[in-house]
Amino acid sequence: MPRYELHPIGWVESPLVDRASAPRQGDEGAPEAWLVFDPDMRGGIRHLEVGTEIIVLTWLDRARRDVLVVHPRGDPDHPRRGVFSTRSADRPNPIGLHTVRIVEIDGTRIRVRNLEAMNRTPIVDIKPVLGPVEER
Amino acid sequence: MPRYELHPIGWVESPLVDRASAPRQGDEGAPEAWLVFDPDMRGGIRHLEVGTEIIVLTWLDRARRDVLVVHPRGDPDHPRRGVFSTRSADRPNPIGLHTVRIVEIDGTRIRVRNLEAMNRTPIVDIKPVLGPVEER
Repeated sequence: MPRYELHPIGWVESPLVDRASAPRQGDEGAPEAWLVFDPDMRGGIRHLEVGTEIIVLTWLDRARRDVLVVHPRGDPDHPRRGVFSTRSADRPNPIGLHTVRIVEIDGTRIRVRNLEAMNRTPIVDIKPVLGPVEER
Repeated sequence: MPRYELHPIGWVESPLVDRASAPRQGDEGAPEAWLVFDPDMRGGIRHLEVGTEIIVLTWLDRARRDVLVVHPRGDPDHPRRGVFSTRSADRPNPIGLHTVRIVEIDGTRIRVRNLEAMNRTPIVDIKPVLGPVEER
């Protein structure tokens, strides 16, 4: 079986330090946070702009990878479901997917709104939100 | 520097075999394709349903990882941009992000519409598209 190696491009700096108290999604009361990029990534983050929405992909390094079935939102009253029909952090490849808005850029540090990832979470990719086909 | 290991959960079966002729995004004329899951993932894909939209994360194994600046859409007439403000496949961690609709389920094979990933691309995660907060 092939394996692929992720190399973090940066890390999250956030007031969230405890999984139990973190919001489940960014639009459920998540705080502002800094995306702190490796200085080697400077060329890649050029052209990111304050005010725009971006998609942040993280590696949820505190998740369990041996789980295929969960109670959605960690609520035992919710019937168990296969992880791929949930947003559980626990899953075979715990990649976090976060849509956030840029509020400040300071060199290789980018401040964003509504990020539910915890402090020190590795960042593995950033993508723009796609607009309509004719504007690409 | 920490490294993280991705384990494919399945593979794409698609008529697309050539990067040069593949559409740039799923909504730009991409064909139907099968997501073929490892039989061990059966528990995780339960509850995926025909007619729903899902987010497929892939590992773009034919991409270049040493590129930080590209001409968007591969067009030399477009000024070069940092890769994190483009959807280029070439990037430090070439994770593909695809929103597709399920059209058929056959055991551990799931047929989807509008997938621009090429044949044999590894699948690393599946997530539901999130609805409004009050319906989660």
